[in-house]
Amino acid sequence: MSNGSLAGFDSLEKVLEEYIPADKLAEVKRVLYGVNLGKPVAALELPEALQKVAEEQSFDLQAYKFEAAAEQFRAPRIVKIGLIQNAVVEPTTAPFAEQRQGIYNRVSQLIEAAGQAGVKILCLQEAWTMPFAFCTREKHWNAFAESAGTGPTTQLLQGYARQYSMVIISPILERDEAHGETIWNTAVVIGNNGNVIGKHRKNHIPRVGDFNESTYYLEGNTGHPVFETAYGKIAINICYGRHHPMNWQAFGMNGAEIVFNPSATVGELSEPMWGIEARNAAIANSYFVAAINRVGTEVFPNEFSSADGKPAHKDFGHFYGSSYVAAPDSSRTPSLSRCRDGLMVAELDLNLCRQVKDKWDFRLTARYELYADFFSRYIKHDFKPQLVKDPSLQ
Amino acid sequence: MSNGSLAGFDSLEKVLEEYIPADKLAEVKRVLYGVNLGKPVAALELPEALQKVAEEQSFDLQAYKFEAAAEQFRAPRIVKIGLIQNAVVEPTTAPFAEQRQGIYNRVSQLIEAAGQAGVKILCLQEAWTMPFAFCTREKHWNAFAESAGTGPTTQLLQGYARQYSMVIISPILERDEAHGETIWNTAVVIGNNGNVIGKHRKNHIPRVGDFNESTYYLEGNTGHPVFETAYGKIAINICYGRHHPMNWQAFGMNGAEIVFNPSATVGELSEPMWGIEARNAAIANSYFVAAINRVGTEVFPNEFSSADGKPAHKDFGHFYGSSYVAAPDSSRTPSLSRCRDGLMVAELDLNLCRQVKDKWDFRLTARYELYADFFSRYIKHDFKPQLVKDPSLQ
Repeated sequence: MSNGSLAGFDSLEKVLEEYIPADKLAEVKRVLYGVNLGKPVAALELPEALQKVAEEQSFDLQAYKFEAAAEQFRAPRIVKIGLIQNAVVEPTTAPFAEQRQGIYNRVSQLIEAAGQAGVKILCLQEAWTMPFAFCTREKHWNAFAESAGTGPTTQLLQGYARQYSMVIISPILERDEAHGETIWNTAVVIGNNGNVIGKHRKNHIPRVGDFNESTYYLEGNTGHPVFETAYGKIAINICYGRHHPMNWQAFGMNGAEIVFNPSATVGELSEPMWGIEARNAAIANSYFVAAINRVGTEVFPNEFSSADGKPAHKDFGHFYGSSYVAAPDSSRTPSLSRCRDGLMVAELDLNLCRQVKDKWDFRLTARYELYADFFSRYIKHDFKPQLVKDPSLQ
Repeated sequence: MSNGSLAGFDSLEKVLEEYIPADKLAEVKRVLYGVNLGKPVAALELPEALQKVAEEQSFDLQAYKFEAAAEQFRAPRIVKIGLIQNAVVEPTTAPFAEQRQGIYNRVSQLIEAAGQAGVKILCLQEAWTMPFAFCTREKHWNAFAESAGTGPTTQLLQGYARQYSMVIISPILERDEAHGETIWNTAVVIGNNGNVIGKHRKNHIPRVGDFNESTYYLEGNTGHPVFETAYGKIAINICYGRHHPMNWQAFGMNGAEIVFNPSATVGELSEPMWGIEARNAAIANSYFVAAINRVGTEVFPNEFSSADGKPAHKDFGHFYGSSYVAAPDSSRTPSLSRCRDGLMVAELDLNLCRQVKDKWDFRLTARYELYADFFSRYIKHDFKPQLVKDPSLQ
């Protein structure tokens, strides 16, 4: 169906802005994008020089601001976060070192722009150093895997972290050398002093369509860590974990104020879900969510099949980008481009999280004991669903 | 802000249809409303006579169809469901018997239309026999409460259930006479033979804004029942329970194929969440969700305050209707009107639920053991969040 090539459909928001008259557009946006302190989410001004860089380097640069009410006992806790989405640069037939270097060079431009925009917590997309080659089921792509603590990607980003005093989340293919060279899908968290604070491994692994990722790595064994950084408490829900509400919830129960969701997902499969899941998580858990998806179509050297009755092929569709930030008050930013590399900057007042908790009281009203009991019973082999059958039926 | 009176903003979908050119509209609708078997959710044809009734009786009538793929071992399991949204009829100053009779009369028109459309499972809105008076904190509104099993409302609907061989879900204010005349917010499930199959009490009770409903009733004690009816396995998530992902999930774990979400919620508070939560539940749990909200502004006899710094007043905003059906494949219908009474008819092939389960495998990949353990630890007083503090910080 759509592969992102439809002229003029760079983003949903651009279509709405172009055609709908102002008075009705305000209502449409209120329903679709919510309000923050009673107003539409505000644009954040960035230096003009940076806008020029974005034009010259051809990436989508957008910036927004989420405000919170003034409080009696706490000062505002304002932090700028950044989301980077990008296409791969070299063809997938190029030597791996060239492919990775091409991505490094491109993403470095975007990281530098983020640094100049004052971003203090930056997140890259899932498996950002490589094409998303897991559709091929070929194992030599594992060559892109590297040590979370000391690999070349971590080293590259440690420099930027120190340079900009920036926390960087780096989702990579990890090779765990301490445990038999096992492969994991991992997000490395680098602190603003350049140290590796820790890592989180993807909790939920898809077996759907081309995403038979358990060919490469299995369910993560790092729990639901929340990383207390210089700028706030953050967690990472990698890609397919966004379909699992309990996963989102566990990060919230551990205290996350911002959950990043680095992803790789294509239009045919998931685009109608994209605006729903991250945003529902932000609402249900009273935290910010930053949802990131790569862009472009990746063509692989060898044919593969997709278990969908269609002939073998060399690409599996268009990564539709559309990265955005969702707030606990149910407001959200527009999306980055469906087709172009992009940097989204969002200034958050983290005080909003607790303000929304106090207003809506989802934790007060959640009845955790009821569900802990229910789930404990559910996992037993002799679980019987609570089914009430109409006795008047045969 | 909006109180539903903005000219031309009867529904988001009408604005999109009016202004966006066809080629771009197709993409906008794909992203916002998803696809069912690769196509937009199809309109369902209804008898012309019924369309005429809707015009004469002035209600919004819409009908759609969700299809599933053909299967080798199962025949299609097709059922028509109906959702009714309505405003109260008489002023809230009228004698209670007149208020209730006015609603009975109006809703009877809509039930008859549903019967003629071939609806086999019908759901009314939350506390449908009365104005949503809980904002007043006045206790005399409890006079509207009645027995779930033998009250006048159940009796009225038993007639319709038999007449149309229709399962009817009737959300009422319940008075539990067997337990000290306690008040509950309850959905009564009446089978297609007119018998009461059972009831479910609202699991999560709000304390937010005007919705301080715990003044009247507390958290339900009926668990997460799924009712096995002649036409499918159904459950009811009453209103505020839609903010609680575990609540949705428990109904799915008990086997629900359709979850009805009868609600009463106003624009200022929740409209941007409305399109998100029910739909996320349908996706995450691989079942259909039917979300229902009342319409209109209800003006009460006495002033009340809303704990929001504003002067006391006699109404708390516009119930924005917008009832819709969401499918497990992430597609959905458009919304009913934001302002008018309405009947939404949706023909579902329930086989879609298992087809989506088998495709996406959210149950296979959910790691229930992990969460049963996590939640069991969370509810203990000595729970320690999994927090990883940057050691380089002071």
